[in-house]
Amino acid sequence: MASIEKIDVVQDIYEENDRIALETKESLGKKGIFVINVMGSPGAGKTSCIINIIKNMPEENFYVIEGDIESEIDTMKLKELGINAIQINTNGVCHLDAPTVQNYTKKINIDKPGILFIENIGNLVCPAEFQIGEHIKMLICSTAEGSDKPYKYPLAFEKANIILLTKCDLKEFVDFDDDFFRKGVRGLNRKAPVFEVNAKNGEGFREVVEWIKKNR
Amino acid sequence: MASIEKIDVVQDIYEENDRIALETKESLGKKGIFVINVMGSPGAGKTSCIINIIKNMPEENFYVIEGDIESEIDTMKLKELGINAIQINTNGVCHLDAPTVQNYTKKINIDKPGILFIENIGNLVCPAEFQIGEHIKMLICSTAEGSDKPYKYPLAFEKANIILLTKCDLKEFVDFDDDFFRKGVRGLNRKAPVFEVNAKNGEGFREVVEWIKKNR
Repeated sequence: MASIEKIDVVQDIYEENDRIALETKESLGKKGIFVINVMGSPGAGKTSCIINIIKNMPEENFYVIEGDIESEIDTMKLKELGINAIQINTNGVCHLDAPTVQNYTKKINIDKPGILFIENIGNLVCPAEFQIGEHIKMLICSTAEGSDKPYKYPLAFEKANIILLTKCDLKEFVDFDDDFFRKGVRGLNRKAPVFEVNAKNGEGFREVVEWIKKNR
Repeated sequence: MASIEKIDVVQDIYEENDRIALETKESLGKKGIFVINVMGSPGAGKTSCIINIIKNMPEENFYVIEGDIESEIDTMKLKELGINAIQINTNGVCHLDAPTVQNYTKKINIDKPGILFIENIGNLVCPAEFQIGEHIKMLICSTAEGSDKPYKYPLAFEKANIILLTKCDLKEFVDFDDDFFRKGVRGLNRKAPVFEVNAKNGEGFREVVEWIKKNR
């Protein structure tokens, strides 16, 4: 296969993906659904952040589509809390794409306006390349991952609309360098706010919720 | 493009990759080089583990090929310690592949028998799919990522020859469930040993080094 043909194929895939993502975003938007694409490394705390946000917005309707390579661990956790959640298992695929998500938005029972979280595969690289129908991208990054992450994985930080720095209770144990982290974020993204949170005791989530209310 | 043709292309890519990986492994093996493919999530502690192993084997020659999407942060860290290291920047690509690694093994000055670490891109998904010329795969997983990682990202755990559980000093702060983690690992991989380490104070690395000496 000549390289020019390869590029064409890749471009076609992205274009088709973006077309479907726009379709999903618009059709859900018409129903009063605000879609948040939640991205981050394995174990950054994506599900815990979703749960904390939901707890801080008791007046809102929520829907969650959980993306994982395998397992239903997070979906079970959400369902136990009475949250309307369904699971996508990608069986090896490293990111969610728009056609897959569109299928699952038809399977989850969306009957009232509200917020739909789509938790992407735990991966700080590939998910940032694909729109899936979201209104905003929420990036979850934990202090335990180290303060150099914006420098090493720039695209996810560049594309984020809001950034949650999680596990802030661990800062002192992992020598987290706040200045270095924030300088890295600002070099890539001048607009996205960075909220420091602790999902264990709920610290910082009221500010996150205020931001979502203002920006939806 | 018909789906059957798509599958053929993907299969060709894997086959060509594996052919080159075998070539690299054999040609480095003849020079007395033992190649370790170091995999793990962003911020799991891959570079810190490499440094701790090197410190515990003063009699050995070491070479490091550092894979990152962007930045030279880790290579600079290694060079400051006098370690022979070069950087691969993949500019967005989410894993290392055999052709890229083969190129860089020609650029690093390998003049004596020893150990070559190839630090893969921080990603618990894609790197597990590609051989790059390694004799063994070393999986680095941090307690801060949570004890459910084997269930959610099975392939990396299945393919590992040795597993290092890092940041064990954080266990009590992150409610790490040892039994759940080890049960998950053993369900996928009956052979790979799991070593608990702490890269901050060097705990656990003598046992890792003993294992490498026995298994190289």
